[in-house]
Amino acid sequence: MRVVVSVGGSVLAPDLAHERVEQYADVIDQLVDAGCSVGVVVGGGGVARDYIKTARDLGANEIELDDIGISVTRLNAQLLIAALGDDAAPSPAESYEEAGEAIRRGDVAIMGGVTAGQTTDAVSAALAEYTNADLLVYATSVPGVFSADPKTDDSAERYDRITPGELVDAIADIEMSAGSSAPVDLLAAKLIERSRVRAIVLDGTEPTAVLDAVLRGEHDGTDIVP
Amino acid sequence: MRVVVSVGGSVLAPDLAHERVEQYADVIDQLVDAGCSVGVVVGGGGVARDYIKTARDLGANEIELDDIGISVTRLNAQLLIAALGDDAAPSPAESYEEAGEAIRRGDVAIMGGVTAGQTTDAVSAALAEYTNADLLVYATSVPGVFSADPKTDDSAERYDRITPGELVDAIADIEMSAGSSAPVDLLAAKLIERSRVRAIVLDGTEPTAVLDAVLRGEHDGTDIVP
Amino acid sequence: MRVVVSVGGSVLAPDLAHERVEQYADVIDQLVDAGCSVGVVVGGGGVARDYIKTARDLGANEIELDDIGISVTRLNAQLLIAALGDDAAPSPAESYEEAGEAIRRGDVAIMGGVTAGQTTDAVSAALAEYTNADLLVYATSVPGVFSADPKTDDSAERYDRITPGELVDAIADIEMSAGSSAPVDLLAAKLIERSRVRAIVLDGTEPTAVLDAVLRGEHDGTDIVP
Amino acid sequence: MRVVVSVGGSVLAPDLAHERVEQYADVIDQLVDAGCSVGVVVGGGGVARDYIKTARDLGANEIELDDIGISVTRLNAQLLIAALGDDAAPSPAESYEEAGEAIRRGDVAIMGGVTAGQTTDAVSAALAEYTNADLLVYATSVPGVFSADPKTDDSAERYDRITPGELVDAIADIEMSAGSSAPVDLLAAKLIERSRVRAIVLDGTEPTAVLDAVLRGEHDGTDIVP
Amino acid sequence: MRVVVSVGGSVLAPDLAHERVEQYADVIDQLVDAGCSVGVVVGGGGVARDYIKTARDLGANEIELDDIGISVTRLNAQLLIAALGDDAAPSPAESYEEAGEAIRRGDVAIMGGVTAGQTTDAVSAALAEYTNADLLVYATSVPGVFSADPKTDDSAERYDRITPGELVDAIADIEMSAGSSAPVDLLAAKLIERSRVRAIVLDGTEPTAVLDAVLRGEHDGTDIVP
Amino acid sequence: MRVVVSVGGSVLAPDLAHERVEQYADVIDQLVDAGCSVGVVVGGGGVARDYIKTARDLGANEIELDDIGISVTRLNAQLLIAALGDDAAPSPAESYEEAGEAIRRGDVAIMGGVTAGQTTDAVSAALAEYTNADLLVYATSVPGVFSADPKTDDSAERYDRITPGELVDAIADIEMSAGSSAPVDLLAAKLIERSRVRAIVLDGTEPTAVLDAVLRGEHDGTDIVP
Repeated sequence: MRVVVSVGGSVLAPDLAHERVEQYADVIDQLVDAGCSVGVVVGGGGVARDYIKTARDLGANEIELDDIGISVTRLNAQLLIAALGDDAAPSPAESYEEAGEAIRRGDVAIMGGVTAGQTTDAVSAALAEYTNADLLVYATSVPGVFSADPKTDDSAERYDRITPGELVDAIADIEMSAGSSAPVDLLAAKLIERSRVRAIVLDGTEPTAVLDAVLRGEHDGTDIVP
Repeated sequence: MRVVVSVGGSVLAPDLAHERVEQYADVIDQLVDAGCSVGVVVGGGGVARDYIKTARDLGANEIELDDIGISVTRLNAQLLIAALGDDAAPSPAESYEEAGEAIRRGDVAIMGGVTAGQTTDAVSAALAEYTNADLLVYATSVPGVFSADPKTDDSAERYDRITPGELVDAIADIEMSAGSSAPVDLLAAKLIERSRVRAIVLDGTEPTAVLDAVLRGEHDGTDIVP
Repeated sequence: MRVVVSVGGSVLAPDLAHERVEQYADVIDQLVDAGCSVGVVVGGGGVARDYIKTARDLGANEIELDDIGISVTRLNAQLLIAALGDDAAPSPAESYEEAGEAIRRGDVAIMGGVTAGQTTDAVSAALAEYTNADLLVYATSVPGVFSADPKTDDSAERYDRITPGELVDAIADIEMSAGSSAPVDLLAAKLIERSRVRAIVLDGTEPTAVLDAVLRGEHDGTDIVP
Repeated sequence: MRVVVSVGGSVLAPDLAHERVEQYADVIDQLVDAGCSVGVVVGGGGVARDYIKTARDLGANEIELDDIGISVTRLNAQLLIAALGDDAAPSPAESYEEAGEAIRRGDVAIMGGVTAGQTTDAVSAALAEYTNADLLVYATSVPGVFSADPKTDDSAERYDRITPGELVDAIADIEMSAGSSAPVDLLAAKLIERSRVRAIVLDGTEPTAVLDAVLRGEHDGTDIVP
Repeated sequence: MRVVVSVGGSVLAPDLAHERVEQYADVIDQLVDAGCSVGVVVGGGGVARDYIKTARDLGANEIELDDIGISVTRLNAQLLIAALGDDAAPSPAESYEEAGEAIRRGDVAIMGGVTAGQTTDAVSAALAEYTNADLLVYATSVPGVFSADPKTDDSAERYDRITPGELVDAIADIEMSAGSSAPVDLLAAKLIERSRVRAIVLDGTEPTAVLDAVLRGEHDGTDIVP
Repeated sequence: MRVVVSVGGSVLAPDLAHERVEQYADVIDQLVDAGCSVGVVVGGGGVARDYIKTARDLGANEIELDDIGISVTRLNAQLLIAALGDDAAPSPAESYEEAGEAIRRGDVAIMGGVTAGQTTDAVSAALAEYTNADLLVYATSVPGVFSADPKTDDSAERYDRITPGELVDAIADIEMSAGSSAPVDLLAAKLIERSRVRAIVLDGTEPTAVLDAVLRGEHDGTDIVP
């Protein structure tokens, strides 16, 4: 089984604490031991936000801010690589080809962002598409896809299971509401729709949730099933 | 004045005929002579569609198809570079940094696609954002942004002037309708909204229309004004 | 047994039809199943000729035309890679080192042109030399090496078996005649002479001819035996 | 006059605050306006220390830690590039050749670390050597070269002026004392000795100190004069 | 006037002596002062022969030997770059694009070999073609093109002026004779024929001969005139 | 067992003779057969000294001289690669990541220098550190670490066994004496101290000495044991 796991930067290393990174490395090792081939895409988190804020104050444009964010995602990827040791390709992959090549060799491929104008949400979907993954798991800080932003709308309900088309509609609605943030962005949703990959959005603050979702199909998030 | 021009592959070289490429090279030369610094993003057109169809029949996944499309956009970029001669950087830029560097040196920068999951529409908007362009012109095969797809809906009306936010809404509506094609895609619209660059969508089958739009502000397309 | 197969672009994908590409992929799979390690060099064909004609009309010099041709050979290589799926390295190799590395890893290596001033004929011979191949097969649109150009000279006779030195002489004679085209070019012939690799030139419009030649030593083309 | 300025990460952006970065950008602009060609090498600072601590806890070896540190130095370099805008080459140089090329073109070159096993102290000295700089300024958190570590030894005296050979001896002595930290490391000192470049070590917490030192020869640090 | 100068390795630095390299640097400086834009291609010479002999004894194949030869040509190019200082691009160009880009910027471009299967003779002709040079000068150890190999055939006569077609014939004849060496190889001759660049083959042991040939049209070698 | 072997250029190929290279290839093959994974770092030797002398006479600065030296180390690495054939990665690794990747794949990794300001002594120590090697062997032209330079000081005594800290002190003392040369340089000693890798310095003019040291722990050099 081929799995791509997308881990937000703040989910992977809140305050750069090493414990969570170790837990994720342990989860990935167990996936490998269970016979999975694994690609991981790591986000930027709080360090990215700090650098981007400073760079914006210094007059950087949005593409330069994206580039700075990508640099931080790769730093975070280096942490996960350090924790995985010999199981992972030793440098963050900078393209889908490089990640796919590592997976073909039998390594765990770790990557961050790829290019400006694409979040790591979209990179995760593209990597799943490129490697013909069986499953794509988003380990985020919100526990699934909601009918609205749960932080701002009490009536927001979590979907247990939706189609990729419904995901695109739900995300489009959320993105149109000022100030809301979606668990994955619209480009990612459209790539998921295009590739028809099965996906799960779940709360990643407890890393073993990923393990349960992948190996046992059990989770409290949202299933996206074509 | 810094201008980014986005030229569809079929607009640049229908049937690979050299005449249209020459006309575009001539338009770009006149922009340079008028003191503009210019970046150009070239699309894939019919050759890309032919290769993508064949590759899809051969079992390629969507990211591989994107990669093939990107290869064709760069081939088309090589044609425009050949026509421009010493005014253009001699190879298609493969990143925003490379294109921006060429423009800083005083060259015309020509590029095609950058990475899978992004059309050349989005690349154009990102290049405009990265280079802090004053104007972004989409030379497409449809004469502007419409309230619906003009090919399939007789009541579709062309907008003369809209805001970036309205552009995002209009494109989102069109993309949600099965079978419709928008003049620029949603990711591009969102990048335009984010960067607040002034943009024009116009019919590029007559290349001088780009010249009139940039130098004299005259065109029959849609103005996107923040 | 290590084999390098050189497939002309028009032989691989006449009119970009996918059927022939599939047949070639099937032949390569059978070679791999029979225990061969395989490198393939793909030519540019009709699409290359179309782009080169347009670029020449636009004033490109010969090296720029070579570069455009190389871009098309790599596009064609991407088609064959798509058809081969996981058996092939996922991107066209751009150097002999990269191709050799893929073959050492157990992948089928697919490449197009390498640098201006060298045809894919010569690239094929160089790849055979670099990888110490046991056999080099040219799958061309003419059924072997002739004493003259069979298209223009009725008395042209096909050689069944010649030495590399005789190949060089034959090719040199053909290249000196205005308007004639040789099945492989002179640089390729000289590389074959230098490396003393066994080679076969045969009609590749029926892909299984390559299979018969490699696995059973049966073909209707020309054997080049040091 | 060609100047290389080495700025510690904590000196450039304590707590990632943008004000100090802006001040350094302003100082560099004034150097350029005064006719200097300028290369800047940026260190890793507190963010580097945080990431390195986490990675060490995760089991990274020293070279991997160096690589993580280098990634952070380049992030910091991106901040300074954002502040400098069009005066600086748009990406951090990753080699002396790339930095030297930018300087030859008339850009300010900004770089971070280059390779494991070399601090940015040494990179600064090597860049000065490679570009035949007239002056190398270390803007550090200690106000010069001392006879011992001033943080731990009350009798430590600052040298006003020493030779490169004396610098090497002083640094070697400090490095031999457990727990002490030198203002520049021994490899840097040896490169300074080898290249015979004039150098100044000064307190960089007030960025205009660099300006006074370069343009007016006035500073409260240590002059290293061959 | 744009000139490409091809200098054999043994012509540039017999026994690695620096005097000849300085003389060539001086000649190139004078060409630049006279308003020429200049590209130089450097060969491998005696060091290349020594390394190739050793590598052949160690079992390297011909492509590996070519690669070793290319490495030495780049080493020799580094010597000429050192002698030229700020007039030359600081690293040997590794492709025609890179060399052409340096020349467009106003630098002298220095390169060695490019890829296996091509001598620096052919690289020189290709660089002249790519940069649309007005003149290509081969500074070799033999004083022109002869009717046969002057070292082995007393009746060999030097041609004062021949056409590119005659050059191809003459070189083909020489190459067919076992043991003979031509002043330029056949691939180079064919590229000269294809590009129709004016070329001169002359004795380069006296570097000022290149100056006289380029600036005053005076030389004792062979003119190749389309 | 993972071993990094550092071989001086003059030790590997005195006068470019192939016999010694063959012996070293044979030793490496025996290490591989005994189950070791092996990385080798090759120095520049006499050819490097010759090129550096010429380049210094031509006005090159120290970094340019380092770069020329690095080019020669890679040439020498190509010789050892040729001798090893299919056991070695086919090109010299240019970074620790590339070398580590080759070793992970099961190849012998061969590299030369990496960047200016670092000798191959230091590269060897860094490669050992990066790959978590069990043992680092310096095959040099002096038979161990001495209390002084044995060439100039008759009272110099070879240490049989020292700690990394003592190594640093010993090397620092030798480097401070004008005209003396240490068996490994100070940066290398400090990296050994930092990584706590076990190391051996021995006379490499008889290649089998490396074999005895690695496989049987027998040698006449100096053991460095943390």
